Amino acid sequence: MALISIIEDFHPLNNAKYLDIAKSLKPSLHHHIFEPVGAFMLKERYSSEKEAIRLHDVTHLSLGKGRNLCLDFGSHRVGRVSLALSYSGSHPDAPALLKLKFAETLKELSENSDSYDGWISSSWIQEEYVHVDVLPSVISLPRRYAFRYLKITLMDTSPKYKLVIKHAECLAESSAYMERSGAVSYKDPMLDRINEVGIRTLHNCMQDVFEDGPKRDRRLWMGDLRLQAQANYSTFRNNDLVKRCLYLFAGSRFPDGRVSACLFTDPVVEADDTWLFDYSLFFVVALEEYLEATGDLQALEDLYGVAMEQIDLALGMLGTDGILDQNAVENTFVDWCDPLDKSVCAQSVLIYALRFARKLALRKEDAGRAEAIEERIIQLSEAARDRFWDADQRCFVSGQGQVSPAGQVWAVLAGLAEGEEACSAVKQCESCVPDLKMTTPYMHHYYVMALLACGMKEKALDHIKSYWGSMVEAGADTFWESWMPEDPEASPYGGSIINSYCHAWSCTPVYILKEFFHEEWEET
Amino acid sequence: MALISIIEDFHPLNNAKYLDIAKSLKPSLHHHIFEPVGAFMLKERYSSEKEAIRLHDVTHLSLGKGRNLCLDFGSHRVGRVSLALSYSGSHPDAPALLKLKFAETLKELSENSDSYDGWISSSWIQEEYVHVDVLPSVISLPRRYAFRYLKITLMDTSPKYKLVIKHAECLAESSAYMERSGAVSYKDPMLDRINEVGIRTLHNCMQDVFEDGPKRDRRLWMGDLRLQAQANYSTFRNNDLVKRCLYLFAGSRFPDGRVSACLFTDPVVEADDTWLFDYSLFFVVALEEYLEATGDLQALEDLYGVAMEQIDLALGMLGTDGILDQNAVENTFVDWCDPLDKSVCAQSVLIYALRFARKLALRKEDAGRAEAIEERIIQLSEAARDRFWDADQRCFVSGQGQVSPAGQVWAVLAGLAEGEEACSAVKQCESCVPDLKMTTPYMHHYYVMALLACGMKEKALDHIKSYWGSMVEAGADTFWESWMPEDPEASPYGGSIINSYCHAWSCTPVYILKEFFHEEWEET
Repeated sequence: MALISIIEDFHPLNNAKYLDIAKSLKPSLHHHIFEPVGAFMLKERYSSEKEAIRLHDVTHLSLGKGRNLCLDFGSHRVGRVSLALSYSGSHPDAPALLKLKFAETLKELSENSDSYDGWISSSWIQEEYVHVDVLPSVISLPRRYAFRYLKITLMDTSPKYKLVIKHAECLAESSAYMERSGAVSYKDPMLDRINEVGIRTLHNCMQDVFEDGPKRDRRLWMGDLRLQAQANYSTFRNNDLVKRCLYLFAGSRFPDGRVSACLFTDPVVEADDTWLFDYSLFFVVALEEYLEATGDLQALEDLYGVAMEQIDLALGMLGTDGILDQNAVENTFVDWCDPLDKSVCAQSVLIYALRFARKLALRKEDAGRAEAIEERIIQLSEAARDRFWDADQRCFVSGQGQVSPAGQVWAVLAGLAEGEEACSAVKQCESCVPDLKMTTPYMHHYYVMALLACGMKEKALDHIKSYWGSMVEAGADTFWESWMPEDPEASPYGGSIINSYCHAWSCTPVYILKEFFHEEWEET
Repeated sequence: MALISIIEDFHPLNNAKYLDIAKSLKPSLHHHIFEPVGAFMLKERYSSEKEAIRLHDVTHLSLGKGRNLCLDFGSHRVGRVSLALSYSGSHPDAPALLKLKFAETLKELSENSDSYDGWISSSWIQEEYVHVDVLPSVISLPRRYAFRYLKITLMDTSPKYKLVIKHAECLAESSAYMERSGAVSYKDPMLDRINEVGIRTLHNCMQDVFEDGPKRDRRLWMGDLRLQAQANYSTFRNNDLVKRCLYLFAGSRFPDGRVSACLFTDPVVEADDTWLFDYSLFFVVALEEYLEATGDLQALEDLYGVAMEQIDLALGMLGTDGILDQNAVENTFVDWCDPLDKSVCAQSVLIYALRFARKLALRKEDAGRAEAIEERIIQLSEAARDRFWDADQRCFVSGQGQVSPAGQVWAVLAGLAEGEEACSAVKQCESCVPDLKMTTPYMHHYYVMALLACGMKEKALDHIKSYWGSMVEAGADTFWESWMPEDPEASPYGGSIINSYCHAWSCTPVYILKEFFHEEWEET
């Protein structure tokens, strides 16, 4: 994700106890060396037309001024790169100036970064200019990159020599061990491929926190964490990493106690001044799910209060009519979809979170609180039904008569409709106006969860195959932050070159398949 | 210098004994920290119009996207730079992308490097793009730069924060101690300033070898070394550095024994495949001058043979008429001046070098050799007078009737004319055709030496004041590689942005003033 919210003089409220526990859970990173498995040249500057080169020939290839060499590291990698460089011809009498472009996809590799003019910073584009003063030499780039392809363009050199690339390698980093992914085999090649791509996506985002994407934002977001944690319980089971992230969110918050939408961990832990109504509530959901997965009593004891604080803060945003105010609605994320009216969604997320809060209260043996929450669920659901359910259209309507997929999905997940009504609402998702279409795998995940909630299991499986499968068919090694099969150029940021092509919120089929489709898989 | 000569399959002949002695003489570098003394902004992208900023205010200044800050380090520095960076606004949620441009002069600072299209590599332009992932942080750039000004442009950042530059410093490097320059004071402010600029020029080129220029080529050239060594004897007296360089040239040569025009020292010592007739002979000159300065008997014993080999190789290029062949002439440097016919110059440099070779032979008590050289000097001088002296014009003429300053200067320095004839020839330098004008301080140095040889001391001093003084008046902190006061844009390379503005071959007034103008100075 990437959102621009600026609060002047923002000073997060830090809790040393929580941050110390989070620090004690900081994982060490494991390393694995990857070398290129293929190579090619791009024929023109921003062309995607390739001239094949056998990898074997690369170390004998002399690059002159303006020529490029693209290395294919086989699949998506997150790590640090070193290059062993040499020359042919006379002894180098001027530095070599290289442009290095790291790209997660082939498309990104051939795009011109100068033409990007979106609303988030072009500094996310993984491009470097490097002067090499001494040849032969090994250069080790100090930054971490997320990529499959590396394009090396020799911007300039002296006419006296040409550049030779003797060796390249990526020292990949993750706090998860790929061999401990708990992968299973499905009875369907596409599902197996979706599962494999999903596991790699999650793995590559598991660093010293759960990052949203290792290219961008390389940062911990609460809504993303909730899905990553679920996927993790079905795969790597690095449960301490989830715990660490929950303590981080508890450890640096808005001064009024709200959980921030995201957190920075470098150079010190600091909550971002971005608040999202739904993301704060996902802290409650993620905590309950973590406790369900682990039974961790220390975390229950420590974080129960922080979770209930989120509930109380959210309930404080209700009007007398039991409907959330505009501040809550406008600060709800749900999906990258500007025209979307989020009233149904915000209200539904609150009710959805209340159900998890109730379980938390029961787990804490806080019966009074559990009962109070139960009452609130009933009250808010009734208010929501009254306001948003349209008996004629048999779906949820918000704003100026808007029928959105996101609205149907969240209302169903909140339990605002059941049985045939829920099915009717969810079916609206297939025929929505183009402007309101779901844009991210994050939203598609909740759509599949709504289908499952309605008992439409086959449809859920079909959607996984068709939506996530379309990314696989388009060449995904890891799942993408944002994807509309009918509009491959779409970007929430004003240019697809800035998109993240390994985004953990998109890995959730690994969870859904394993938890809901037992009959489809067998232990490998 | 920078010349493009390419010899296929060139394998220099290395001599381990000489290279070991050179290695044992490798100096340690001394360091000195310099901080900026001023700051300003350039108003537009490639403008030289400045907006003043008080240095005091810089650390409170927030740079937004596209804005620049220029730091003035007070004078020319050679070293490594570190920047302490911070931010204002929200916590940085995207990397900062900085463009750093190091410039030796203000003019260079405002030039657009993209528009350079000369014949040597643009990779010499001291420009870097740096992504800063974590703020606050201190970044230490790995390369060494030669500069006075550093322009920091914030290419992109997130709208959530701005960049703040808290501190900048340069850890300057040299193997010479500035406080041991042996500087004297002249009775003339301009001479004092010329001397000061010359000493800084030499100092900043004295690294682990005598570099031609610390921006470019950062390398040891034989013709440059000869002048640097002379300037060094009058100032820092780091005589071991001269010795080291002579042993390097002796230690890696062309397979047939020729001293190369220049040498690489990184990653290992290796002669360049560039040979210049005059530069090879300057080995003889520089060795004799080194022995005169030091009386070093080991060097005489070791290097006498190498020097005499250069003489023999050069004599082998004479025709039966006692005039050098075209190969020698075409591979003579003399000056950056394409239309220059170098026949007089090449012949004169050989005779000039023979005079030093004779002294060497006498020093070695090799009387037979000294006598043979003496005969050669007479023979070659007569052949040259016959071929090149024009009694009507009273000057030296080469090629198709060409009367060049370079030709007059070298003929006089070789002793091909004396007394009134020499004066008449040298006076031609003032009225030459524009195409043949001297272009470098290197050539102007020999012009001044020719004036002195003719006893025209006052004119020599005037020329130092007017030519080197014009660089001072144009803002030089160190003397420039190439300079024609009437054409400030001139470059031997097709773009002045690539010129070196601290070039040791231009520092020679420090030698000339001290050695020839005793009456003008007093010990400080």
